[in-house]
Amino acid sequence: MSKLTNQKLQDYFFRLRSNKVFEMFVVSVIIFSALMVGAKTYELPPVLLTVTNILDWTITFIFMAEITVRFIGEPRKRDFFKNGWNVFDTLIVLVSVIPIDNSDMAVIGRLVRIFRVLRMISIIPELRTLLNSLLKALPQLGYVMLMMFIIFYIYAAIGSTFFAKVDPFLWGDISISMLTLFRVMTFEDWTDVMYDTMEVYPLSWIYYFTFICLTAFAFLNMVIGIVVSTLEEEHRLQDAERAEAEGEPTLKELQAEIQELKALIKEQHSVR
Amino acid sequence: MSKLTNQKLQDYFFRLRSNKVFEMFVVSVIIFSALMVGAKTYELPPVLLTVTNILDWTITFIFMAEITVRFIGEPRKRDFFKNGWNVFDTLIVLVSVIPIDNSDMAVIGRLVRIFRVLRMISIIPELRTLLNSLLKALPQLGYVMLMMFIIFYIYAAIGSTFFAKVDPFLWGDISISMLTLFRVMTFEDWTDVMYDTMEVYPLSWIYYFTFICLTAFAFLNMVIGIVVSTLEEEHRLQDAERAEAEGEPTLKELQAEIQELKALIKEQHSVR
Amino acid sequence: MSKLTNQKLQDYFFRLRSNKVFEMFVVSVIIFSALMVGAKTYELPPVLLTVTNILDWTITFIFMAEITVRFIGEPRKRDFFKNGWNVFDTLIVLVSVIPIDNSDMAVIGRLVRIFRVLRMISIIPELRTLLNSLLKALPQLGYVMLMMFIIFYIYAAIGSTFFAKVDPFLWGDISISMLTLFRVMTFEDWTDVMYDTMEVYPLSWIYYFTFICLTAFAFLNMVIGIVVSTLEEEHRLQDAERAEAEGEPTLKELQAEIQELKALIKEQHSVR
Amino acid sequence: MSKLTNQKLQDYFFRLRSNKVFEMFVVSVIIFSALMVGAKTYELPPVLLTVTNILDWTITFIFMAEITVRFIGEPRKRDFFKNGWNVFDTLIVLVSVIPIDNSDMAVIGRLVRIFRVLRMISIIPELRTLLNSLLKALPQLGYVMLMMFIIFYIYAAIGSTFFAKVDPFLWGDISISMLTLFRVMTFEDWTDVMYDTMEVYPLSWIYYFTFICLTAFAFLNMVIGIVVSTLEEEHRLQDAERAEAEGEPTLKELQAEIQELKALIKEQHSVR
Repeated sequence: MSKLTNQKLQDYFFRLRSNKVFEMFVVSVIIFSALMVGAKTYELPPVLLTVTNILDWTITFIFMAEITVRFIGEPRKRDFFKNGWNVFDTLIVLVSVIPIDNSDMAVIGRLVRIFRVLRMISIIPELRTLLNSLLKALPQLGYVMLMMFIIFYIYAAIGSTFFAKVDPFLWGDISISMLTLFRVMTFEDWTDVMYDTMEVYPLSWIYYFTFICLTAFAFLNMVIGIVVSTLEEEHRLQDAERAEAEGEPTLKELQAEIQELKALIKEQHSVR
Repeated sequence: MSKLTNQKLQDYFFRLRSNKVFEMFVVSVIIFSALMVGAKTYELPPVLLTVTNILDWTITFIFMAEITVRFIGEPRKRDFFKNGWNVFDTLIVLVSVIPIDNSDMAVIGRLVRIFRVLRMISIIPELRTLLNSLLKALPQLGYVMLMMFIIFYIYAAIGSTFFAKVDPFLWGDISISMLTLFRVMTFEDWTDVMYDTMEVYPLSWIYYFTFICLTAFAFLNMVIGIVVSTLEEEHRLQDAERAEAEGEPTLKELQAEIQELKALIKEQHSVR
Repeated sequence: MSKLTNQKLQDYFFRLRSNKVFEMFVVSVIIFSALMVGAKTYELPPVLLTVTNILDWTITFIFMAEITVRFIGEPRKRDFFKNGWNVFDTLIVLVSVIPIDNSDMAVIGRLVRIFRVLRMISIIPELRTLLNSLLKALPQLGYVMLMMFIIFYIYAAIGSTFFAKVDPFLWGDISISMLTLFRVMTFEDWTDVMYDTMEVYPLSWIYYFTFICLTAFAFLNMVIGIVVSTLEEEHRLQDAERAEAEGEPTLKELQAEIQELKALIKEQHSVR
Repeated sequence: MSKLTNQKLQDYFFRLRSNKVFEMFVVSVIIFSALMVGAKTYELPPVLLTVTNILDWTITFIFMAEITVRFIGEPRKRDFFKNGWNVFDTLIVLVSVIPIDNSDMAVIGRLVRIFRVLRMISIIPELRTLLNSLLKALPQLGYVMLMMFIIFYIYAAIGSTFFAKVDPFLWGDISISMLTLFRVMTFEDWTDVMYDTMEVYPLSWIYYFTFICLTAFAFLNMVIGIVVSTLEEEHRLQDAERAEAEGEPTLKELQAEIQELKALIKEQHSVR
C-alpha cells in the first residue's frame, strides 16, 4: 500500500469516526451489550443461550471493528494509546477474544462482558467530564482519608485487644475489627455490637460514642473542604470569564488613568 | 347567545376566579376532600359510608363547577390547556365522574380521590413555585443519575453472577440485585447481606465497601453540584437586581468618564 | 412606702440583677436543679428522698426570689412580661409552688422540675441567640414542610388503601401509615416493611423507591435553601458592616466626584 | 564538655533532624511499629512472639534516639517542650520503657504501643495541619453542643420518668436514657424502642418524632454554621492575599486621588 492510499484511508476513517450515525450505532451496540449482560442473569432456555453466545461474538466483532476504525482514523498513531479511554477500550475487546475453555476462566470472561458497560462512560462525553471532575476531587481527599485510616486503625487495634474474647466473629483480628468499625460508622446495628461488649466492659459505650463523633466530624470536615474548594474554583473561573467577556477594567487600570490625568494637568500648569 | 353576553359572562367569571372568597372556598373544599380521603382509611359504620359517598359527589360537583368557572373566565381559551396544572385539574375531575361498577375499577376511583390532594399544590402559588424549582433542578441531575445507574448496573450484574446461588431472594437476577444494592446504599441491614455472602466468598466485603464508597461519593458530588449551581444562580440574580435598583455604575462606565475628562483637558490644552 | 424609697429599691435591684456574682449564683442553682432532676431517676434511699424534697423547695424559693429581684429591678414594669423568657421563668416557678396531693398531678410536678433545665437557655445569652436564630429559620421552612406533609399524606392514603390487609399494625389507617412512612424515611428497617408487602404486591418496591427519592430530594432542597439564604444574609450583613467600618466609598460616590471634576473643568473653560 | 563542642553537636543534630533520609527512616519505623500493633492482634506462634518482643524494644530504642536527636538539635531547649507534639512523643516513649510485670499493666503497655500510631500525625506536616484545622472548628461548636446536651438531658429525664417501668434496660436511669436517645438519633432500630413504649403510652410517638426533628434540626444548623464560617474565613484570606499580590488599589485610595486632582484644578483656577 502506498503512502497516499494510506493517507486517504486515514482521512476516510477520521470522518467516519466523527460521523453522528456511526456514533449512535456504537452507543446502541453498547446499550445492547449491557442489556445482554443483564439478560444473562435470568435463567434462560438453551436455545436463547446459543443466541446470546452468537450475539456476544457479534458485539465483540463490532467493538473490534470500531476500535480499528478509531485507530486508523487517528492522525498521530502514538497519541492513540496516550488516551486512557482508548487503552481501556482496547483491553476490554482483547480480553473478550481470548478463547476460554476452563470453567474458572469462564467467570472472568463474564466479568469482562460486564465491564463493557463502562464503555458507556468512554463514549458519552458528558459522563467522561463528570468522571474526570470526580477523579480531580480525589487527591484533595488524600490526607483526610489517611487521617480516617489512622483513626480506624487505632480504634480497631484497641477493639481487637479488648473485645476479641467477647465476640471473635466481630473483633477477631485487626482487619475484621476495621470492617466492624466501618459497620458502626454506617450506624448499621451498631447498638447490637455495643450491648454485647457492654456486658463485659460496662464503659465500652465511650469507645463507640467517641468513634462515631470522631469519624462523623472528620467526614463532615471532608465534605465541607470539597464544597469550599469547589465553590472557590468555580468563582475564580467565573470571575476570569466575566472579566474577559465584558472587558471590565480593573481598579488598577482606573488608578493608572487617574494618575495620567494628574500628570497631564500638572504639565499644563508648568507649561503656562 | 350573542357575542356580547358571552364577553360579559367571561368578564364576570374572570373576576369571580380572582375573587379572594372564591379562592378560600376552593382551598377549603380541597382540604375537606383530603380529610375525606384520610377518613376512609378508618373503618366506618355503614351510615357514615353513605354520607361520605354523597360528600364525594358533592366535592366532584364543586370541582367541576370551579374548573368551568376558570375555563369560561379564561380570556384566550387556547391558553387554558397550555397550563399543565389546568390539564391536571381537568383530568382529575373527569376521571372522578366516570361511573364505576367493577370492584377492580373501584380501587382506581379511590386512587383518583387521593390524587385530588395534589390540587393543594396547584391552588397554592407558593407550593407551585417550590415544585417548579424542584423540577428545574432535575435536568442538572440527569447525567449524575445516569452515572449512578451505570454503577448500580455493573455491581448488580457482578452481584447476581456470583451471589445468586448464595441467596436467590436477594441476588436472583439483575433487577432484584439492583433493589438489594439500593438497600445497601441506604445502609439498611447491609451487614446481614454481607455476612451471608462472606461465608462463601470471604473477600466479598471489598464488593460492598467499594460500592458504598462509590455511591456515597457520587451522591456527595451531586449534592455539591446542586448547591454550587444554586448559589451561583442566586448570586447572579442578586447582583443584577442590586445593580438595577441602586443605579450603581460599572467600572467600565467610570473608565469612560475618566477618559472623557482626559479628552476634555487635552482639548483645552490644544485650544489655548 | 414613698415613691422615693421605691425608686431606690428599684435601682438597688437593677444593680443586683446585673451583678456578675448574682448571675453566677443563679446559673449554679439552675445547674444544681438540673442535677437534682437527673438524680431522681436513680433509685434513692428514703433519707435522700427527704433531702431532695427539701432541696427542691429551696430551689423553688431561690427561683422565686430571683424573679422578684428581676421584676423589681425592671425600670418599666410593663416591659417585664413582654419578654417571652420572663413569662416562661415566672410560669415555671408559679407551677412549682402549687401544692400537689394527687399522684397523677405528681407526674406533672416532676415534668415542671425537668423543664426548669430550660432556664439554662433563658439565662445564658449565647444560647438565647442560638435559639432565636433557629426559630428565625423556621418560617422559611414552612412551605417545604407543607409540601412534605402532602407527599406523606398521599403516600399514606395509598399505603393504607392497599397494604392495610397485609399488615394492619403498620398500615391500619392513615395516621399509623404516616408514622410507618416516617420510619421508612429514616431508613429504619424499611426493607422488612417492603418485603412484607412485596409478597402480596410484587411491584410495591416502586412505592418505596419513589417515596424515598421524593422525600430525600425535598429534604435536600430544603437544606440547600437554608444554606443559600443563610449565606446571603451573612454576606449582606458583612458587606454593610465592612462598608460602615472602613468608610469605603461606593462606586456611585466615585462617579459623582468625577462628574464634579468635569463640571469644574468645563466651568474653567467657559470662564476664560 | 566545653561549650564549643556542645554547639557543634547541636548544629550537627539540627542538620540531622532536617535531613530527608533521617525523616524517611523515622516515618518507616513508625509505619513498621503500626504494622507490629496490627500483627499482634492475630494469634502468633511463640517464636514470632519473641521476635515481636525484640522488635518492640528496638522500636522503643530508635524512638528514644530520635527524640534525643531532636532535643539536642533544638537551638533553644525551652521551646522543645512548648510544642505539644514533642511532649506527646516524649510521653509515649517514656511510658514504653517502664518495666511491666503485672498482667493488668501489660494491657496499658499494649495501649501505649497502639497510640504510637498517632506519631504518624506528629511526623507528617499535612496531617498536623489538618488536625489543627479540626481543632480550630471545635470552639465554634461549643454552644451548639451545649444546646444539644440540654435537649438530650430534658428528653432523657422525661424518658426515664415515664418509660423506666416499660424497659429498665433502655430507660433505667438518666445516663442510660441518654445513650438510648443517642441510638435513636442515629436511627438505629429506633422503631423497636418506640413500639415497646407505644404499647403502654400510645402517644409516645410524639416524644420520638419531636426528638428526632429537634436534634436533626440542631445538627443541620451546626453543619451550616461551620460551612458558612469556613467559607467566610476562606473568602477573607483569599481577598487579603489577592489584594497584596496584585497591588490592587482600594476604592478609598482611588477617591483620595480624585480629590487630589480636584484640589489641583481648583488651585490652578485660583492661581490664574
